[in-house]
Amino acid sequence: MKKEEIKKLVSNMTLEEKIGQLTQIRTSYYNNMNTSGTGTKSKLNINNNQKWMIGTVLGKLDAAMMIEIQKEYLKNNRLGIPLLFMHDIIHGFKTIFPIPLALSCSWDEGLVEKTARISAKEGSSSGYQATFSPMVDIVRDPRWGRVIESYGEDTLLNSLFGAAMVRGYQNNDLKEEDTLISCVKHFAAYGAAEGGRDYNTVDISEYRLRNEYFPPYYEAIKAGAKLVMASFNVLNGVPSTVNRWLLREVLRNEWMFDGTVISDWGAVKELIPHGVAEDSKDAAELSLKAGIDIEMSTTAYFEALPELCKDKNMEKLLDEAVEKVLLLKNECGLFEDPYRGVSTEKEKKTLLRSDFRKVAREAASKSMVLLKNSGVLPLESNKKVALVGPYANNKSILGPWSLDGDLNDVVTIYEGIKNKNIIIEAVETTPFSDINEEDISKLMNKVTTSDVVILALGEEEKQSGEAGSVSKISLESSQVKLLERMKELNKPVIVLLVNGRPLDLTNIINKADAILECWFPGTEGGNSVADILVGDYNPSGRLTMSFPNGVGQIPVYYNNLATGRPKDLLVNEKRYKSQYLDIPNEPLFPFGFGIGYSNFEYSGLTFNKNKIKRNEEIKCSIKVTNKGKYRGIETVQLYMRDKVADTSRPVKELINFKQVEINPNEIEIVDFVISEKQLRYWNTENQYKSDDGVFEFTIGKDSSSGAMFEVTLIS
Amino acid sequence: MKKEEIKKLVSNMTLEEKIGQLTQIRTSYYNNMNTSGTGTKSKLNINNNQKWMIGTVLGKLDAAMMIEIQKEYLKNNRLGIPLLFMHDIIHGFKTIFPIPLALSCSWDEGLVEKTARISAKEGSSSGYQATFSPMVDIVRDPRWGRVIESYGEDTLLNSLFGAAMVRGYQNNDLKEEDTLISCVKHFAAYGAAEGGRDYNTVDISEYRLRNEYFPPYYEAIKAGAKLVMASFNVLNGVPSTVNRWLLREVLRNEWMFDGTVISDWGAVKELIPHGVAEDSKDAAELSLKAGIDIEMSTTAYFEALPELCKDKNMEKLLDEAVEKVLLLKNECGLFEDPYRGVSTEKEKKTLLRSDFRKVAREAASKSMVLLKNSGVLPLESNKKVALVGPYANNKSILGPWSLDGDLNDVVTIYEGIKNKNIIIEAVETTPFSDINEEDISKLMNKVTTSDVVILALGEEEKQSGEAGSVSKISLESSQVKLLERMKELNKPVIVLLVNGRPLDLTNIINKADAILECWFPGTEGGNSVADILVGDYNPSGRLTMSFPNGVGQIPVYYNNLATGRPKDLLVNEKRYKSQYLDIPNEPLFPFGFGIGYSNFEYSGLTFNKNKIKRNEEIKCSIKVTNKGKYRGIETVQLYMRDKVADTSRPVKELINFKQVEINPNEIEIVDFVISEKQLRYWNTENQYKSDDGVFEFTIGKDSSSGAMFEVTLIS
Repeated sequence: MKKEEIKKLVSNMTLEEKIGQLTQIRTSYYNNMNTSGTGTKSKLNINNNQKWMIGTVLGKLDAAMMIEIQKEYLKNNRLGIPLLFMHDIIHGFKTIFPIPLALSCSWDEGLVEKTARISAKEGSSSGYQATFSPMVDIVRDPRWGRVIESYGEDTLLNSLFGAAMVRGYQNNDLKEEDTLISCVKHFAAYGAAEGGRDYNTVDISEYRLRNEYFPPYYEAIKAGAKLVMASFNVLNGVPSTVNRWLLREVLRNEWMFDGTVISDWGAVKELIPHGVAEDSKDAAELSLKAGIDIEMSTTAYFEALPELCKDKNMEKLLDEAVEKVLLLKNECGLFEDPYRGVSTEKEKKTLLRSDFRKVAREAASKSMVLLKNSGVLPLESNKKVALVGPYANNKSILGPWSLDGDLNDVVTIYEGIKNKNIIIEAVETTPFSDINEEDISKLMNKVTTSDVVILALGEEEKQSGEAGSVSKISLESSQVKLLERMKELNKPVIVLLVNGRPLDLTNIINKADAILECWFPGTEGGNSVADILVGDYNPSGRLTMSFPNGVGQIPVYYNNLATGRPKDLLVNEKRYKSQYLDIPNEPLFPFGFGIGYSNFEYSGLTFNKNKIKRNEEIKCSIKVTNKGKYRGIETVQLYMRDKVADTSRPVKELINFKQVEINPNEIEIVDFVISEKQLRYWNTENQYKSDDGVFEFTIGKDSSSGAMFEVTLIS
Repeated sequence: MKKEEIKKLVSNMTLEEKIGQLTQIRTSYYNNMNTSGTGTKSKLNINNNQKWMIGTVLGKLDAAMMIEIQKEYLKNNRLGIPLLFMHDIIHGFKTIFPIPLALSCSWDEGLVEKTARISAKEGSSSGYQATFSPMVDIVRDPRWGRVIESYGEDTLLNSLFGAAMVRGYQNNDLKEEDTLISCVKHFAAYGAAEGGRDYNTVDISEYRLRNEYFPPYYEAIKAGAKLVMASFNVLNGVPSTVNRWLLREVLRNEWMFDGTVISDWGAVKELIPHGVAEDSKDAAELSLKAGIDIEMSTTAYFEALPELCKDKNMEKLLDEAVEKVLLLKNECGLFEDPYRGVSTEKEKKTLLRSDFRKVAREAASKSMVLLKNSGVLPLESNKKVALVGPYANNKSILGPWSLDGDLNDVVTIYEGIKNKNIIIEAVETTPFSDINEEDISKLMNKVTTSDVVILALGEEEKQSGEAGSVSKISLESSQVKLLERMKELNKPVIVLLVNGRPLDLTNIINKADAILECWFPGTEGGNSVADILVGDYNPSGRLTMSFPNGVGQIPVYYNNLATGRPKDLLVNEKRYKSQYLDIPNEPLFPFGFGIGYSNFEYSGLTFNKNKIKRNEEIKCSIKVTNKGKYRGIETVQLYMRDKVADTSRPVKELINFKQVEINPNEIEIVDFVISEKQLRYWNTENQYKSDDGVFEFTIGKDSSSGAMFEVTLIS
């Protein structure tokens, strides 16, 4: 359909039909009227006429159901405008990939894009046209359960991986049947919920928003995302849902976003408890004025817009929003084919294809981060092992937001290991908590014949994800106890961690001989764990979120602003510097950290200039040598520090990285080109610019080390 | 001196003389050249000429020394401009009062003012003209050691107590010899250091600054404070020291502050590590332009202004700043009498007067907060007690920032108790940490003959105060152990806490029979503790900072903004609401909480209207009955909630309170008048206004309970 035709279509619609387009309800309304399920409950009052005017739906579906619903819908919709089906496909649809936080630890844009491409193929084959992904909220508080959905604490990584996801879903042409419309969320800064308590207040200066929080949303939009979701939270006093500065000034005017804006679940009516709307009428008026095109899961628009749109200005806003929704449908070709080529045959051929599973295995392997290894890994062949713990043989490793993943398809850790050349003496899947002394004693008896004990520990799925905020981020005490008792046997103990957030590992770090952070690894998780345990995969994951030295260190992240009394500079001053008296300033494991079975040595730093003008580039390189016995992937990281600017700037900022795969005893030269654009930041006058002066660059294996050089930018 | 004469004086000064007036160095420069001591060390290069041009000094002094230094100085200063002597007199000079956080728990403005009045009498008698107090930084993070200096988490209390301190120091007429110039600090929002790590970044929206953080500074200035100190921290990217918006736009233009602005210790040169200045020249230029009149403890102005002030605009700024410093000296009559009536005789008669000590005892009694009492308190007469713990008989209860307090003047807890009608069976002062099993066993033997065990536990002074940030806020584990073992004796155990911050008491709350939060109580602390233990004083303190349910709940404070998914409203929703899965949302002890030996019952709420216009007032009242056996003070608290506004507003805001002292079985009617002004807030367009709509008011004994009524504001 052409753009002009859409305008014409809008002009032919009744007021109620228009409002219907702006309303999103659950797909289940079209099967049965059961509206229970996730999310805060709200009674909708959609009458049978309105039901056939609804613009978009969200929720579970398959190809047959989609065809049936769409057919019935089109029979009833006066103007023949098809329904658009949306869903939360977050880290895979049937083939479940590692949680996004894990995936980001691969530092592999291509891989990230591939996973989204597969999600789009699978999801679209089951009848969806849009997914509420990616989430590119910067996260610095591991208490917040939704860190699982983020790409971590870094702005560049969230920007790159968010854009890669958009490309993977949309694949440049949404008219193609195997794509999904991508919805960037949650605009803005939802990840900065105070105290890590989900849905809580967010308060961040514009300076920080523009430099740290905004770029990932912007880059995802630049990559083509057609949908943006407003976040639940208050931002600087105003809920995003009604934040005109955010949704109109920044998103529409500055960033020129011309797609569609959707509220989060129930957020329009939640303006009432937020205290910015007295009733549905207020809520509808404020939301439409702020730029919410689609109201998700409440019906303030239906209730209030008929009256409100007697006002010509409101009617104009209404028409604009309807146009945005119809454009979205047009974008993905729904007017041409309301079924978008969906068939049960195609669906069957698409879901869980073996090549998809292969990518899932690759993704899980690359996402896992080896945090400690005293030499026990990789396991020598024919070692006798005992596998114990809540995740020993447990299918529930898909992680939160894997609504359509089938536990029957999951490879557990036990199943993965048993395919390897290892003798398994015992497999004992324990509870997550309350493992009593007696049970532990029994377990100890069972592992006596093994050479090595593998403890598969972690958090239950429900402990993280949406609304999964916790105040304590250590392992359950009985899991720690289990480790302590196993250590008494004087056998090496390998800890595998299945969880969704950076944990406080201070109470296990010295007790385990090796720690592998497996995250929630998805469908192929068990195979990936096994690959790493025996050395079929040389672990290459690098943390994208700092692991704190205790919950009392939160927030700890690598790119904090410079203070006037830096601990690392004031070495002769004992007290009066920015520090904690009881712990280091550094996290237990820093951003960018991860070890493997190789030992990569850095040497031979080069750089071509120590002064540049704005039109010049810096070229630099480092020599990386694999001194280990295993071929492996190294992620070479380039950090910058702007030493003098109009404002305080981060002590380090990741500005680039490269992955190289190197054979034992081989050398790779890794080079980077740095342009003036990478030296810019948003100053307090909202200018995006670089300042003359010294810049410090560090090339290293993580954010805490590396080879350093300085270059002066001159006018 | 008249204002015109000051301008003339400035015009007669050489450039170097002018810069001297803007430079503050340590008083010790005039005794000897030893510059070691508190604060980050920096080498100053003041030559002997410059030494006699310096405008102000800070540091330890007595009357004799002041007279000697001033005499010598005036001999050498070409124009005969006297030195001005400043000092950190924070919660008392020789007579030490409880730390400010404690003092605020008295909820007694008059008392607070009295303590400052005494500090001024004492401090001025020893030769000072100015003190760096009050600090009115809102604090919500008990990890930050400087919470000890704040009046807590509430804006109204910081405003009232800050202003009371200013009045107490300055006493309406700074020409009076027994006054001190008051310096409000730290402008702005120093208390919001990220992660509670001192000197760390602060990032707060203007919305929150204006509604929550700014008012206390403003009110202290309105109360007449002549000095303002810029804070160490970065505020929204820009260190306060060079924050022109803060120091020029807000402070000078909006608030019309016409006093003097001083940097914090070393902050001008700390602009270099902050990364906003390349060198001293940058630092000096940016600071003077931003409005720093006095550079404390570094000499960037001396180094760079001679060159920079060749620029006419800079010279003009310099002259303005010099004028501000001379005005300050004039304000307190230094030109008329450079010694301000100081004499060793007067000093001797003034310091530690018995009536001052009486106020210190009253202040300490009123500051202590009884958190738990299973009935063991007050102690029956002739009870046999054992007194054990690090604070059993320990003089170090003055607290941080009591530089001039003499430990010999301190009444310890033991000394306080022994004056009462109590039999002390054992007194054992233990270490703070590492009390081993054997020592505990010995202690247990020593207390066997007692009826009650009193454990005087807490933090060492150095664990809080400036640069006293910690990641763990529980008691030392061996103190907890001590409590656990004592409980085994089946005697009542009373815990006294001497400390500077809200502690995590989750691991002792169920083990102690009574808990009295004594804070660092000052010179008379032991007497106050004893008064409360035996019931000579009925405890009346109320918390001004929430005690968290664990460090993982930080920040927790009573006046958080409303969310869209409030836990207390969504009672039928199990998961999808703003909460932690492992702890309640509520703190262990809320703001406003405290118990006593009486039982005050509230009844008979009245209010005169349920609708008001802006020119009308609400009158409301509550009946408070003392159902206990002890006469006591009750603090009746009035909270407001603005249910619909342009922005999300706090779920509760303290807008007034009244203290009443009631005899057993007597009744007091407490009434409040609420005017429209109290309903206002700063919206995002920076308008200070009230919105039409419903306001909810609660009158209660703390922030978590009370009798509620609603009133609608109409136009």
